[in-house]
Amino acid sequence: MTETMALIGLGSMGYGMAQSLLRAGHAVFGADIAPEPMSRFQAEGGLAARPEAIDTLVIAVLNAAQTEAVLFGEDGWAPRLRKGGTVIACATVPPSFARAMAARCAEAGLHYLDAPISGGAAKAAQGALSIMASGSAEAFTGAGPALEAMAETVFGLGPEPGAGSAMKAINQMLAGTHIAAMAEAVTFGMTQGVDPAKTVEVISKCAGSSWMFENRGPHIVDGDYTPRSSVNIWPKDLGIVLDIAAEAKFSAPLAAAALQQFMAAAGSGLGSEDDAAVAKVYARNAGLTLPGDT
Amino acid sequence: MTETMALIGLGSMGYGMAQSLLRAGHAVFGADIAPEPMSRFQAEGGLAARPEAIDTLVIAVLNAAQTEAVLFGEDGWAPRLRKGGTVIACATVPPSFARAMAARCAEAGLHYLDAPISGGAAKAAQGALSIMASGSAEAFTGAGPALEAMAETVFGLGPEPGAGSAMKAINQMLAGTHIAAMAEAVTFGMTQGVDPAKTVEVISKCAGSSWMFENRGPHIVDGDYTPRSSVNIWPKDLGIVLDIAAEAKFSAPLAAAALQQFMAAAGSGLGSEDDAAVAKVYARNAGLTLPGDT
Repeated sequence: MTETMALIGLGSMGYGMAQSLLRAGHAVFGADIAPEPMSRFQAEGGLAARPEAIDTLVIAVLNAAQTEAVLFGEDGWAPRLRKGGTVIACATVPPSFARAMAARCAEAGLHYLDAPISGGAAKAAQGALSIMASGSAEAFTGAGPALEAMAETVFGLGPEPGAGSAMKAINQMLAGTHIAAMAEAVTFGMTQGVDPAKTVEVISKCAGSSWMFENRGPHIVDGDYTPRSSVNIWPKDLGIVLDIAAEAKFSAPLAAAALQQFMAAAGSGLGSEDDAAVAKVYARNAGLTLPGDT
Repeated sequence: MTETMALIGLGSMGYGMAQSLLRAGHAVFGADIAPEPMSRFQAEGGLAARPEAIDTLVIAVLNAAQTEAVLFGEDGWAPRLRKGGTVIACATVPPSFARAMAARCAEAGLHYLDAPISGGAAKAAQGALSIMASGSAEAFTGAGPALEAMAETVFGLGPEPGAGSAMKAINQMLAGTHIAAMAEAVTFGMTQGVDPAKTVEVISKCAGSSWMFENRGPHIVDGDYTPRSSVNIWPKDLGIVLDIAAEAKFSAPLAAAALQQFMAAAGSGLGSEDDAAVAKVYARNAGLTLPGDT
């Protein structure tokens, strides 16, 4: 069944998601504040004009403020959906924000799926994302065709909007903490004369390993900081996590320490490098020279 | 080839290691400060009297001070080895201590393998430990029969004593940090209404996962704090890690934060519970009730 869709936010994730929707045969308009990805997407087969009576709106922007502006800001998209249409909100946002947006969408006659994404740009382009989704049965049904095109795994987290965002926050809390812990351990090893390549080889097979250790460790070994996922993600995402934690009066000392390391990385000009570059903060503080450093 | 061996430290790890040596056909004396495990091990087939001209001495005690006392303290074991015999030192110790012990053993005509162990009591009993080993070629050769009996995997980390202990420190830094991060994330999720079982189920399949998350998370879900590995391990091991780091003027904020959480767990009477009980510190601080808690 072919649907009329719009995807807002043609960034590293959103562009690939829009391509996946197109590949599944839907009529897709791709919007961005930058004109270049919009015209590029139109050249790839996207709709040339903003559609009306949209079935499904996918919001792939950076944060809560942008999500709200896309839906209800000046010239927002909520009025362009058909009655009973579905909003799929993919940004990392506080659960309370997701609940508030779902309520406003319901008032406007729209279904809202709280649907943060995970998996990186390559998986977005392959239609192989993981999506942590919660919302009404109608929201899941309405989102079905788009989810099928974009995701390999959809975690169904129940009928309450906010549960998807909560799980995403839990995942980001761990993922960010584990990247910083990886950088801390690899550079600590260097102070003891252990080569980063040896650390990554051995620890990957030991109880100290993590998904992030195995994924990001090799970036340090190779001295390759081409951004697959950038340092700048983490002051934002760990900031959201700690905002949510603070609202619940929850003490999160490890996530807080990790945030500070990423903040130091961003503050010292490493923001657009791969997030493994948080190791450069550790190396600088300890007078170490990382692989590939001159 | 049957050897005469002694294993010092019949604790949860050492007892199983001694059993593995026995199963491989060696003549093994097991020693401990407690009489009960000694007589139990003798009843299982261990030597009844302290042997002389020992081929291989395995030291499975708690720390550096005990390792030194076993070798060179009053009535120490170094003189009971045959000339050219081999010491396998398995405690988690600073790399500088391992280098110093290796030098003293060399003076006494003995080979020293810096050989910290990983894997837990069950793997110790099965002869399936991971061992992070460094030392001279002679030390590796001499240790061969014992390593074969005790280990599934031996990571050969080169000829310098200290490299094994450095890798163990790296592993413990990450393992302890990841256990605390797991507890932090699971309880953070509870503040957002996410059930621990759901967090463990979903995150195990996501980029936020770690070996420790998958291994210890279920203990919280089940409310089962039977000590597979106890809270008390971590003030000790993370303490060693941070001592080594401090000596190198290495700033390790995540490991330091994790240590403080384990210290709070030990200080509040949870020391002999499973290390997943660090979650109880988080739960108490946030007014949460963990599964199985009444």
